[in-house]
Amino acid sequence: MKKLYIVGVGSGNYDDLTIKATKILNLSDLIYCDERTFKQLSRYLEKNKIVSNSYTATKERCVNAINSALENKVVSILGSGDTGIYGISSLILEYTEDLIDEINIEIIPGITSAISGASLLGSPLTQDFAVITLSDNLANYEELKAKINSIANANLSIVFYSPQNSTYKNLLLALEILLTYRSSETIVGLAKKIGTNNQKIIITNLGKINLEDIDSHTTIFIGNKKTKLTKNKKMVTPLL
Amino acid sequence: MKKLYIVGVGSGNYDDLTIKATKILNLSDLIYCDERTFKQLSRYLEKNKIVSNSYTATKERCVNAINSALENKVVSILGSGDTGIYGISSLILEYTEDLIDEINIEIIPGITSAISGASLLGSPLTQDFAVITLSDNLANYEELKAKINSIANANLSIVFYSPQNSTYKNLLLALEILLTYRSSETIVGLAKKIGTNNQKIIITNLGKINLEDIDSHTTIFIGNKKTKLTKNKKMVTPLL
Repeated sequence: MKKLYIVGVGSGNYDDLTIKATKILNLSDLIYCDERTFKQLSRYLEKNKIVSNSYTATKERCVNAINSALENKVVSILGSGDTGIYGISSLILEYTEDLIDEINIEIIPGITSAISGASLLGSPLTQDFAVITLSDNLANYEELKAKINSIANANLSIVFYSPQNSTYKNLLLALEILLTYRSSETIVGLAKKIGTNNQKIIITNLGKINLEDIDSHTTIFIGNKKTKLTKNKKMVTPLL
Repeated sequence: MKKLYIVGVGSGNYDDLTIKATKILNLSDLIYCDERTFKQLSRYLEKNKIVSNSYTATKERCVNAINSALENKVVSILGSGDTGIYGISSLILEYTEDLIDEINIEIIPGITSAISGASLLGSPLTQDFAVITLSDNLANYEELKAKINSIANANLSIVFYSPQNSTYKNLLLALEILLTYRSSETIVGLAKKIGTNNQKIIITNLGKINLEDIDSHTTIFIGNKKTKLTKNKKMVTPLL
């Protein structure tokens, strides 16, 4: 049976890989990755295995990886964070739907930035939470409006992925709605460039978010009504 | 500065640990873990380091680990999945709030069962999702009712943790509410005993869930309106 592994690489920092992920990368004949992951991980991988099609769109990279697997190579395709969260797993599973007898797909889970970012901030997601993307490509404005209205009143912590676009339109919508349900004092955490040398965290309040602190590599954590800033400067949502 | 690491061990299967977690376990003087984690990981750890207080309650284990760190040992305390999700991180950060100048706490993120379970089922969480606990100890019945009502109408995938209690009361409440908002054909995935030899996945529909399939080690995935069962028997929420 032909084999294709879809491997979540977390932040892209080698330390963030799982043991399983490192084993899979070792046994692969070919490793497909995007430019960012290539820059971060290439020194840990066997050079002759890497297919870094920097300028290839995500969908094309997935198709190329599938085709290599069909040519009897053991192939891994890497994705940042966990490939099941706004990632490539669904694309590959859809593209290979009719190849059930030919190709075996295995997904290796990775640390998504909701989890790595939370560990840097303290423990903002101890209790129930939602993960929402603000990406222009994925979030429909009207649907997002309805969604944020539905969940803002529930006492969930919320994580926003991909908060920045040219006008911060989706983020501003989300913050405006949240402020009608939650206090402007609600604790908010920003985790920036997780796993890189420029990693930075900022803890602030819902009413005081500075848009200049937010770029496309920022993950935003909105506390629930019980979330607090502890004396040791951690963002903590109590367990009970 | 005294050092305490809070380490998420994922499913407890060694392969599910991150490289970072293995490094921290190697450099620790003492490793606190519960009975289940001890059974799964003890053969990979240096025996003389392990403090497995099997019958000690979680809070007491946290206090003991903090006290060991204050005695100048480098201490790791392990938690299943990610310690920031219904886990021990918040307890330890609260207990050490006044020890800011004495003890440095570092949280090592782990793979939570929403992520490992999703990777086994296919890609159910590709788009926005919520993680909700049904644990009797953590979920207040009236708050849960309001919460599920708020989020059920939003087109989010939902992950339920700790679904079983003696009467399945919270789970039955959640399913009853969900069925008023979503079709009984909504795709549902069950991931059981993730990372163990008895690991099992079941894909079914919201109207056909068999309670006998659900125990306290089952993570439940409720699809959104677009989630489908592909021909290769995977639970997939399309990216777009």
